[in-house]
Amino acid sequence: MKPDTGNGEDSAAVRVVDFEKLGGMVPVIAQDHETGEVLMVAYMNREAFEETLRTGRVCYFSRSRNSLWRKGEESGNVQEVHGVYVDCDADTLLVKVRQIGGAACHEGYRSCFFRRVAEDDLQVVAKRVFDPADVYASKG
Amino acid sequence: MKPDTGNGEDSAAVRVVDFEKLGGMVPVIAQDHETGEVLMVAYMNREAFEETLRTGRVCYFSRSRNSLWRKGEESGNVQEVHGVYVDCDADTLLVKVRQIGGAACHEGYRSCFFRRVAEDDLQVVAKRVFDPADVYASKG
Repeated sequence: MKPDTGNGEDSAAVRVVDFEKLGGMVPVIAQDHETGEVLMVAYMNREAFEETLRTGRVCYFSRSRNSLWRKGEESGNVQEVHGVYVDCDADTLLVKVRQIGGAACHEGYRSCFFRRVAEDDLQVVAKRVFDPADVYASKG
Repeated sequence: MKPDTGNGEDSAAVRVVDFEKLGGMVPVIAQDHETGEVLMVAYMNREAFEETLRTGRVCYFSRSRNSLWRKGEESGNVQEVHGVYVDCDADTLLVKVRQIGGAACHEGYRSCFFRRVAEDDLQVVAKRVFDPADVYASKG
């Protein structure tokens, strides 16, 4: 579902969000709109935020590649936007999404938070939805 | 509930978390352990993370005050830790909590994400649990 945000570039949301605290970016939580599971955290700059509002598909800003990251462009596991929320300080976004393909994590898990802190260890508490080698095979 | 993490300072979790990407901090999502509601996002440095693991109460690092921020120390609305999760890149934490007092946000809302992006506007989609003037009155 594409949220009705009118003209993304001029929306109140884009104007109000504080991109300066982290040097032009804000952290973004992607949460499953049905189950409430937290799927991942990534970043958006203003351009990524505008594209997300305009297209109804989540577009992040990749810090490592220093460019827009249209989530799922390669794997097909896009995130459809069901709602965008701004926090009290307007320096963090929460995006409720439908995760196509069932997995948000590049390691093949539904959520990137698949490891839980246990006694002096990290314990994997989820099962893989896909094998990363199959999905990203072309990357060599 | 205090998670059994043995000696917090030496735990695998503390060793594996990458505090360097954001200059000594990581973003932390606090999520209601029962409802799945995302309550807030704040930051931890290594010391705050160790204290959180050791005490079973969430301790953040305040960027504005440049010091440890024992959530709820003033308002009484502490966050009891029910589980700590580390993401695939080990640069973000998810903490499942029980929010004492019912509200995580200093503006009196259960969640800091009480505003939703609507057509050319931000719409308040939650009701206040408390009046900030009552809780923080002593701050003058």
